[in-house]
Amino acid sequence: MSTPIDDAAALFRAHVQKMLHYQEALALMYWDLRTGAPKRGVELRAEAIGTLSAELFKLETSRELEQYLNQLSEPSTYNQLDPITQKSVLEVKKQYDRNHKIPAERYQEFVVLTSQAESVWEDAKNSSNFELFKPYLEKIVAINQEFVDYWGYKEHKYDTLLDKYEPGMTVQQVDKIFSGLREETVKLVEAIVRSGQKPNVKPFLRAFDVAKQRQLSLALLERMGYDFSAGRLDETVHPFETTINRYDVRVTTKFLPDEMRSAIFSTIHEGGHALYEQGISPDLIGTPLADGASMGIHESQSRFWENMIGRSREFWEYNYKTVLDLFPMQFADVSVEDFYRGVNVVEPSLIRIEADEVTYNLHIMIRYEIEKGLIDGSLSVSDLPEIWRSKMQEYLGVAPENDADGVLQDVHWAGGDFGYFPTYALGNIYAAQFLNALKKDIPDYKEQVRRGNLRVIKNWLNQSIHRYGKTLMPAEIVRQVTGENIDSKYLIGYFREKFKPLYHLL
Amino acid sequence: MSTPIDDAAALFRAHVQKMLHYQEALALMYWDLRTGAPKRGVELRAEAIGTLSAELFKLETSRELEQYLNQLSEPSTYNQLDPITQKSVLEVKKQYDRNHKIPAERYQEFVVLTSQAESVWEDAKNSSNFELFKPYLEKIVAINQEFVDYWGYKEHKYDTLLDKYEPGMTVQQVDKIFSGLREETVKLVEAIVRSGQKPNVKPFLRAFDVAKQRQLSLALLERMGYDFSAGRLDETVHPFETTINRYDVRVTTKFLPDEMRSAIFSTIHEGGHALYEQGISPDLIGTPLADGASMGIHESQSRFWENMIGRSREFWEYNYKTVLDLFPMQFADVSVEDFYRGVNVVEPSLIRIEADEVTYNLHIMIRYEIEKGLIDGSLSVSDLPEIWRSKMQEYLGVAPENDADGVLQDVHWAGGDFGYFPTYALGNIYAAQFLNALKKDIPDYKEQVRRGNLRVIKNWLNQSIHRYGKTLMPAEIVRQVTGENIDSKYLIGYFREKFKPLYHLL
Repeated sequence: MSTPIDDAAALFRAHVQKMLHYQEALALMYWDLRTGAPKRGVELRAEAIGTLSAELFKLETSRELEQYLNQLSEPSTYNQLDPITQKSVLEVKKQYDRNHKIPAERYQEFVVLTSQAESVWEDAKNSSNFELFKPYLEKIVAINQEFVDYWGYKEHKYDTLLDKYEPGMTVQQVDKIFSGLREETVKLVEAIVRSGQKPNVKPFLRAFDVAKQRQLSLALLERMGYDFSAGRLDETVHPFETTINRYDVRVTTKFLPDEMRSAIFSTIHEGGHALYEQGISPDLIGTPLADGASMGIHESQSRFWENMIGRSREFWEYNYKTVLDLFPMQFADVSVEDFYRGVNVVEPSLIRIEADEVTYNLHIMIRYEIEKGLIDGSLSVSDLPEIWRSKMQEYLGVAPENDADGVLQDVHWAGGDFGYFPTYALGNIYAAQFLNALKKDIPDYKEQVRRGNLRVIKNWLNQSIHRYGKTLMPAEIVRQVTGENIDSKYLIGYFREKFKPLYHLL
Repeated sequence: MSTPIDDAAALFRAHVQKMLHYQEALALMYWDLRTGAPKRGVELRAEAIGTLSAELFKLETSRELEQYLNQLSEPSTYNQLDPITQKSVLEVKKQYDRNHKIPAERYQEFVVLTSQAESVWEDAKNSSNFELFKPYLEKIVAINQEFVDYWGYKEHKYDTLLDKYEPGMTVQQVDKIFSGLREETVKLVEAIVRSGQKPNVKPFLRAFDVAKQRQLSLALLERMGYDFSAGRLDETVHPFETTINRYDVRVTTKFLPDEMRSAIFSTIHEGGHALYEQGISPDLIGTPLADGASMGIHESQSRFWENMIGRSREFWEYNYKTVLDLFPMQFADVSVEDFYRGVNVVEPSLIRIEADEVTYNLHIMIRYEIEKGLIDGSLSVSDLPEIWRSKMQEYLGVAPENDADGVLQDVHWAGGDFGYFPTYALGNIYAAQFLNALKKDIPDYKEQVRRGNLRVIKNWLNQSIHRYGKTLMPAEIVRQVTGENIDSKYLIGYFREKFKPLYHLL
């Protein structure tokens, strides 16, 4: 016999599932647009996406949902719910409140503004003309500040934006986590530059048959434990992972005919995201918890595979033979040690998405400091080009000659996404903490990687992180896996341990 | 300034567009399932499809839509509408009435029944056990009869089912159209069998690289005028064409490694469907009229390209060189005349979907006669296996030894689709009538085909048929293009003209 509480919970779950079904349709529509939908159909497709997105938004903000949430949040009811339903209620309520606290017409203005801004940003970037983009960015900053006022905040307005992408994260914590990392990274990069050593990258810049590169990518995904009966690999300009449903987790990569590292590391990176999604407990299917814990935890999984595993010596001691089988001519004169060095070049550069694993976090810190300053009003948009140049010079020792290679390089701000950037660096920090925990649990993990036994790694990640989905907060996961709080010292240690010998530093 | 009529028409159009957007999402979800969606995700995908289909059905049967239709159908209003809106109102009203006249719970029972029946049919076919399927088919016939009672009919219950797929078509007309064709086809097939001639098909049964077959399919689509910037070619077990939107019209084909005719004619067939959809007037976008006029007219386009053009001597006089370029070894000893004969083998056989263009219509007539008899009660389901065998023997001179190769071969009845089969033969009949009209308009059309100038054909079809979409009834299109009523004498004439010389008959 069902109780009124069972009924309310069932209605709530059915409503959430309906939302997930719309999300599945939309995810597929976007995936299709990026993987080969015919160009002339894009305009009509955008209209269809618009309709379905609006329907989904109606479900997310509907009166029915509000009633279910109110009913199930009522303590005497809430306490009788099973733990998955409890967490689902909290998660959906959080989204619901976020959506509801902003007046609908202001949100609509934000959507229009950012859609215009993305188009203006493209022009501004192409002509390296920050002035063009400036008025839009000013409005976007102002509307973000306004939204934070609706949502509320405790210590720092920016906390509320951080929380969107990294639940529970605050400026106070990020400042602390980043500061040591910045200092040590700057020192390490300076030492590497001073060493004057340049690994030979010419072998990677030869001609590489795309079909064979595809074979290599498929082999690497297979070895990582990616489940091809619940996913597929396609090619796109910008690689990504997308979850259509729990058993349909797709990755894409990019094959360059004259540079073979791009596909390898894009594939491993997106494969890392995919293993996360493929590892979430089936118990969470049909709930809002069948998702990554946060952007940062998600990024930790992609970066862990890309850098900690995929750019390790042991990884190539096993996998280099496949490279040689596929490209015997191109690497005839290259030892596995040379190959390892060639996929681990550290060099200060202007563009974030092309940065190596060491300098990458410095690019993020610049953006984080700027975002924080814009939101708390201590920085003004018109100062950005100059601030950008001076911070690049200070942290990386290089500075852009134009704004296209500087403050205009990323689309995130045009899209209104403030609070997102820090999660990239947090992902690297978490990844190093997880690596340290892995070492303790599986002391011979390097030997396993050397033997190609990557399943050991995957299974450990499944057990320690993946299966929990969104039932834990990022900090809870870190604490549960490592017994410690979020701390960048492990990433610093990892950098030193890896790159000092690689660059023969003292 | 907008009038109340403008407002009502705008609301109606917006409602229809919303329906079309759901249809786009669903079409993509089905296309994806058939072209490479990961197997393990299918079950969750089916749930998402279920949700979106239910939402679409709500829109199709909503109170709002009823109000718009009532308002716009009111004569004084209707007469002030533009012609496209008028026809849209009629089209949507027809669907609306069809949906509304059946009690919702009976329709739901039908959906469940046919979904069970499809699964049972599969088992029954695999074990060649008609008794297993019989009780389901009996229920499906009964529910179809009941639905016709709800919908109403004038002369023959089956007319109402025909009208679903071929608007305006009746038993009286089909009986007349089919009877002469049956008689003449049986005679021609007998003469071909008696002639004892067998074209040499061995060259087609060699090994054919799939990548090269794909190249050939792409080249043929390109030459037909298929717009690849508004479509794409993929591979599936059962080839099909699907319209995602007006500028996204996709085709699939099937590559067999040891039989190269399959891909060629699947590609041309589906390409013919696609040219129709790509040729519909852009003025009809966003209306229910951006669709084929009927199943029969749609099939006329695929069969016209597949048989009248794709299996013509002139077509291969131009395109055979591409085959030779791709497969020089396989066809080293084959003249274009031998090739032409090899793609035009006529031979009575048991399975409809493998039948040649001459015997094909006899397969359809058997199904039509059975459907008609079941619906008017003059035949009973338990008699079908025997009726099937005797009609096969009478029309084709061959009879199946088991029901898997007989009455159980097609899925249509399990799916509840009565009235659909005749449209396949009507398509062939229309195609021959269109060919006759083309001859009058472009007397040297064969010479154009021989020169590879297929665009002339495509443009004629665009102008004569495609652009009208669903603004005309099938019989109106035939009359407008040919100046005559639907008549199978042109198909009979086409068969005689083509196959008498091919088989050296008197």
